[in-house]
Amino acid sequence: MSVLVVGSVAYDSVSTTAGSRGDALGGSAMYFSISSSYFTPVSLVAVVGDDFLDEHIDLLKSHDVDVSGLERRHGKTFRWSGVYGAEDVNTRETLDTQLNVFADFSPKLEAKHSESPYLFLANIEPGLQLDVLNQMKSRPKVVALDTMNFWIDGNHESLKKIVELVDVVFMDEGEARTFGGEVNLVKAAKRIKAMGPSTVVVKRGEHGVLVFSGGSIFVAPAFPLETVVDPTGAGDCFAGGFMGYLASTGDTGPEGIRRAAVLGSVMGSFAVESFSADRISSLSHEEIDERFRAFADLSRFAALKDGESLPWRNNRK
Amino acid sequence: MSVLVVGSVAYDSVSTTAGSRGDALGGSAMYFSISSSYFTPVSLVAVVGDDFLDEHIDLLKSHDVDVSGLERRHGKTFRWSGVYGAEDVNTRETLDTQLNVFADFSPKLEAKHSESPYLFLANIEPGLQLDVLNQMKSRPKVVALDTMNFWIDGNHESLKKIVELVDVVFMDEGEARTFGGEVNLVKAAKRIKAMGPSTVVVKRGEHGVLVFSGGSIFVAPAFPLETVVDPTGAGDCFAGGFMGYLASTGDTGPEGIRRAAVLGSVMGSFAVESFSADRISSLSHEEIDERFRAFADLSRFAALKDGESLPWRNNRK
Repeated sequence: MSVLVVGSVAYDSVSTTAGSRGDALGGSAMYFSISSSYFTPVSLVAVVGDDFLDEHIDLLKSHDVDVSGLERRHGKTFRWSGVYGAEDVNTRETLDTQLNVFADFSPKLEAKHSESPYLFLANIEPGLQLDVLNQMKSRPKVVALDTMNFWIDGNHESLKKIVELVDVVFMDEGEARTFGGEVNLVKAAKRIKAMGPSTVVVKRGEHGVLVFSGGSIFVAPAFPLETVVDPTGAGDCFAGGFMGYLASTGDTGPEGIRRAAVLGSVMGSFAVESFSADRISSLSHEEIDERFRAFADLSRFAALKDGESLPWRNNRK
Repeated sequence: MSVLVVGSVAYDSVSTTAGSRGDALGGSAMYFSISSSYFTPVSLVAVVGDDFLDEHIDLLKSHDVDVSGLERRHGKTFRWSGVYGAEDVNTRETLDTQLNVFADFSPKLEAKHSESPYLFLANIEPGLQLDVLNQMKSRPKVVALDTMNFWIDGNHESLKKIVELVDVVFMDEGEARTFGGEVNLVKAAKRIKAMGPSTVVVKRGEHGVLVFSGGSIFVAPAFPLETVVDPTGAGDCFAGGFMGYLASTGDTGPEGIRRAAVLGSVMGSFAVESFSADRISSLSHEEIDERFRAFADLSRFAALKDGESLPWRNNRK
């Protein structure tokens, strides 16, 4: 089944401990599309300027991403530049944001897109997210949403309105704490879940994700990497793997959600291994399978069998 | 098999978001002893002053901790006071440290203690840790060591000397980075491992632990708790569960190390649920078994079976 993503396509200038890259292909919808394209058909709705390079359209097309909803407008493509912390790759400072053609982004869905059974509302203004959902002819099987502190602080009420209507929410630790209004992450996630979503995914960067779904909590580690080149887009690649798994299998039950979160973590781990989409756009099925297996090994241990107890002192010499 | 622990027994004054407690029973060796006492016989070597309360000796005895090596000296017991961050329980500020009788601590092992097959060198001056190891009649089956930034910064060479001789090293994230001389945690842990230890456990507080053992990495999550009262002693309770498992089962192979790390995480998760040793000293076997099972559920997902692949787009409609 196909996934529709609505979000940004951008040119990023990024500086990390591994170096820097200017005007690199970026944007939440771009990262998401390429990540999920390995698993399921993807349609992308976004806007770019007339400076957007054909080679980047070709890159998306080479992944069979449907770019018929990628609008080209007169003006410049959205540009972002930032620097990541040397000690803590989870922290970053924005140096400059130029919305350019993205400033007036107001997505109008084509008929074929308005019937997509899976919808990912990438990080855009919450009012636009609601507008997109309202344009869907029938309620998708799964609607997921990403957001950021900027909207949590400035558009709390309109964000709350759309959160109440979606199935899956992705937020990072700090965002979940702020939006949930609780310092304790478990309490914060439960409060967000109580607003409506059946699943809340708390992204913790190099510490993995916490997935609150149904009545249970699932913890997926991040892959311990020796080389972290650029964290940009890791969260969107996570969402791409997550939604790609659900859309491809149709398994939105507890086991499906867990595997989706692991596949999301797999795709996020590839994303940080290069600048831009270099790594994420050149993966083989074998590499992805292999890392999924490595994730299983990472957290594997012998659980207690039925009737088995821990080795109590009283039972032993 | 029995474990010998050499470290501190203290009175702590602690302030957290949950409240504060003055002159509460604390100290690395105390937390370790009670935690491991559920699984294996423990002997404690430490020093206290003549202000140390009989009820606290009785508490240790009620857990069948061998306190024959707990020296009582004229003077006051080691006192520490600190405040934990409101936003981030992983950060704490030391308000005051009074070494008191601990200042001259120079453990002399009794004959019976010098034959212990498992040895935990809790966080004390690295030269003393080496001195204790040298007093062992035969090389224990497993020697584990904890330390802190104070020694890493100030006694780097003498710490390196003892690290080279032990099997297991426990450090927190920042300590591992500093001691390993690498910002990247995987690289840092590998460098520490290359000094000699077969296992390096990197403690990440509410983000769980990374265990580098043999050629593999194991990630144990922390238990997501709604109530974190006081993180003091969590690391020592982790070490107590970890060493308690190894000493009780004798399984120091890869599977044993993984289960030990999970049991350590279980005991650490109980430690933070109360001030001092309130919770950790009043656990039932059932509660510990139950939380161990909950940990298994926390990170469980369906791994790929032999020959199974992820749901590739090419394979599907």
